[in-house]
Amino acid sequence: MSTTIPETQLAVRWYPASFDVRLENVPTPMIEHPDDAIVKITFAGLCGSDLHVYRGLEDVHEIHICGHEFIGHVVALGSSFSPLSPPSRPELYATLQVGDKIVSPFTTSCGECSPCRRGFTARCTSSFLFGTPVLPGGQAQYTRVPKAGGTLFVLPSSISPNASAPFLDVATFMALPDPTLLLLADILPTGLFVALQALSHPKLSPFTANTSWPNTMDGILYSHISTSAAPLMEDDRVLTIGVVGLGPVGLCAILALLDLLEHRQLPTRFRIVASDLNKSRRAKMQNMYNALPAPSKGPVGSEFIVCGVESLPTWARHGCHAVLEVVGTPPALTLALSLLAPSGVLSSCGVHQAPPIPFTGRELYNLNVTLEFGRCSVRALFGAAAGLLARRRDVLGVVGEAGVVERVVSLRDAVSAYEMFEQGRCGKVVFDAWA
Amino acid sequence: MSTTIPETQLAVRWYPASFDVRLENVPTPMIEHPDDAIVKITFAGLCGSDLHVYRGLEDVHEIHICGHEFIGHVVALGSSFSPLSPPSRPELYATLQVGDKIVSPFTTSCGECSPCRRGFTARCTSSFLFGTPVLPGGQAQYTRVPKAGGTLFVLPSSISPNASAPFLDVATFMALPDPTLLLLADILPTGLFVALQALSHPKLSPFTANTSWPNTMDGILYSHISTSAAPLMEDDRVLTIGVVGLGPVGLCAILALLDLLEHRQLPTRFRIVASDLNKSRRAKMQNMYNALPAPSKGPVGSEFIVCGVESLPTWARHGCHAVLEVVGTPPALTLALSLLAPSGVLSSCGVHQAPPIPFTGRELYNLNVTLEFGRCSVRALFGAAAGLLARRRDVLGVVGEAGVVERVVSLRDAVSAYEMFEQGRCGKVVFDAWA
Repeated sequence: MSTTIPETQLAVRWYPASFDVRLENVPTPMIEHPDDAIVKITFAGLCGSDLHVYRGLEDVHEIHICGHEFIGHVVALGSSFSPLSPPSRPELYATLQVGDKIVSPFTTSCGECSPCRRGFTARCTSSFLFGTPVLPGGQAQYTRVPKAGGTLFVLPSSISPNASAPFLDVATFMALPDPTLLLLADILPTGLFVALQALSHPKLSPFTANTSWPNTMDGILYSHISTSAAPLMEDDRVLTIGVVGLGPVGLCAILALLDLLEHRQLPTRFRIVASDLNKSRRAKMQNMYNALPAPSKGPVGSEFIVCGVESLPTWARHGCHAVLEVVGTPPALTLALSLLAPSGVLSSCGVHQAPPIPFTGRELYNLNVTLEFGRCSVRALFGAAAGLLARRRDVLGVVGEAGVVERVVSLRDAVSAYEMFEQGRCGKVVFDAWA
Repeated sequence: MSTTIPETQLAVRWYPASFDVRLENVPTPMIEHPDDAIVKITFAGLCGSDLHVYRGLEDVHEIHICGHEFIGHVVALGSSFSPLSPPSRPELYATLQVGDKIVSPFTTSCGECSPCRRGFTARCTSSFLFGTPVLPGGQAQYTRVPKAGGTLFVLPSSISPNASAPFLDVATFMALPDPTLLLLADILPTGLFVALQALSHPKLSPFTANTSWPNTMDGILYSHISTSAAPLMEDDRVLTIGVVGLGPVGLCAILALLDLLEHRQLPTRFRIVASDLNKSRRAKMQNMYNALPAPSKGPVGSEFIVCGVESLPTWARHGCHAVLEVVGTPPALTLALSLLAPSGVLSSCGVHQAPPIPFTGRELYNLNVTLEFGRCSVRALFGAAAGLLARRRDVLGVVGEAGVVERVVSLRDAVSAYEMFEQGRCGKVVFDAWA
């Protein structure tokens, strides 16, 4: 099964050692394995973590096609895709068709290994990251998707079956432009992930479940003997959260956080402090917050402060029950820890590199710290992220200076876009593969 | 309120810089604050973390009375203890009596601050650790307990109100000897804590709740759209756990872990690998396991392996869904991480010191690691630990070479006991304050 595919395509390739990407004509990918799909890309994203490679900070040395965010249409399928595919395999092997519109998570996942079944698709035993020497990326006109039946999401069929009406209107969702839907490939689920890792931790049960720690722990504590001195008071339930980093993922993390707090209707107010070194990022975050409807800004008395490190409010220092770290550097971790209250949760989605963790054992012991690290399992969170995107389309659907996606440019302008993005002169860029 | 208290007492005092503890006659403590209680100690424990100070590894430089585990009777109370104590204060201020039998958590907690109400009593805003320059310890004949109404547990009244019959028989419990009940001051709750931190983490929901990650997260995910490729299979639910360190707390951690797994009746089998450098510790752990009744050894097909680092089974390397670190050193953390599978939980109760955490950001990101650090909030876990102690009295009640408590010696022999314990020539020692 295939449509006509040209022999060559435009693609952005990275060259060692650093700061060298080139727009080149390269061979179009072909089916290499029965589980492969070839996707004709409409739009591809430029992500903050692409800069790690661009700057030469990753342990990567071979020329390769960049990019791990893309949306497009299926143009060829391997022989595994057949109505006769056994029911033991992921359903897409039986149902995916040439012509289907898809969005791909930024990592592949087979859907057939134990980590996949347990929900940790980013740590699938045969997972590959797009835009690396082992798997050419999406900043191109075509790309090959391995294990496509376990990896891809078909729009809209992947989101329709169980959508509950108040939260996800499929028609509204599908009317969103591709550069907005592209947020589902990585940064919106990743923002949701870092917020969810914090809020779902049992230590936050006083805020999320109105119970002291340890709460019933999903029934793990089999005997309960009341030993706490006093019940929770209203002031104990004022949730305080810090966010370090207001790049595109940081914006998504805060929108996800506010959405989780709103729709859980936590019977308390909150205080959020969001910090970034970059003034224009802070201004954008503040403007986004201002543009939210009142119910999304939290219960009466809630606070939302955007500031530089030099003007953090006094209550934020060692005062946050959770801190989201959305940068991926040792200084960001150090700042995050300095904001964390004892018994707090530091949730990190930063793509950290070779430097050691800048904490001592004594610091972590004395503060009873939880540290959460790692890569978002986009597949496991896709549904929740799609609902968030539909609900928050007022903000997430904006393309331009005020939006998460600041610019849509031709793939032909990728080299200068890398330069501007790297220098902080623009926010998130999306490439139109065919403009 | 007081009984006759002598002017001086025997106590073990630490002298800088290291390896110098002395048995001395010192003044008996007196009520210093209305919230104080004076306790006449019957038995006091020598704990692995006492060795950090003994060896000069803690940031402590002043002479002080050692020890943070003790059991005894109240002999004097400050003026806050009165039937007229306001109901807004912890109940013990109205009910505690001279003569009551008590066990004390190893840290004080007021029961009146927000961390206390939220269950984090070890991080009470006015918490002190016994056996430090700011709060003389329990390796003595008397000690002063600040914030005693928020800190102490009265036996048996603290454990009776909500005890559910199959799990906690109060009469049986109270028949246990004091050196066994003393385990409730620190090491049994701490062992339970490190096991519970692992099992209660949402990432372990495939094993504890039979749901892929993210599960309902206590309702935090407000919309569910099925995206996982395949349901959990039975093999996905074979829980694999590593334990690093088989000192007294490590033994308690494993007994707690097995008890949690047994009474939760998790419908799966498990594999546990427990490691220590010390051969006699390993032998004791193996003997304890062998002595357990069959139902406590797990469902059919479960494995329990005790071994040295050199003979870890192949499946353990990067194969454990959770690892309990019960040592408190960088090498122990390094070993623990090497056992952890991707998306696993490293739960640490080790009292870590000044060295940096021996992990890079890349390691933690690439493995999607959760790290849990800190001190057990004994007050919050006291009830559950008491139930565990009653159920597992067959093993925990043994005093001698085969038990967690290996020796009961006179407080007068404390100096040589420190030497033997430090050199690994004996396991846990309890001091009889009056022998």
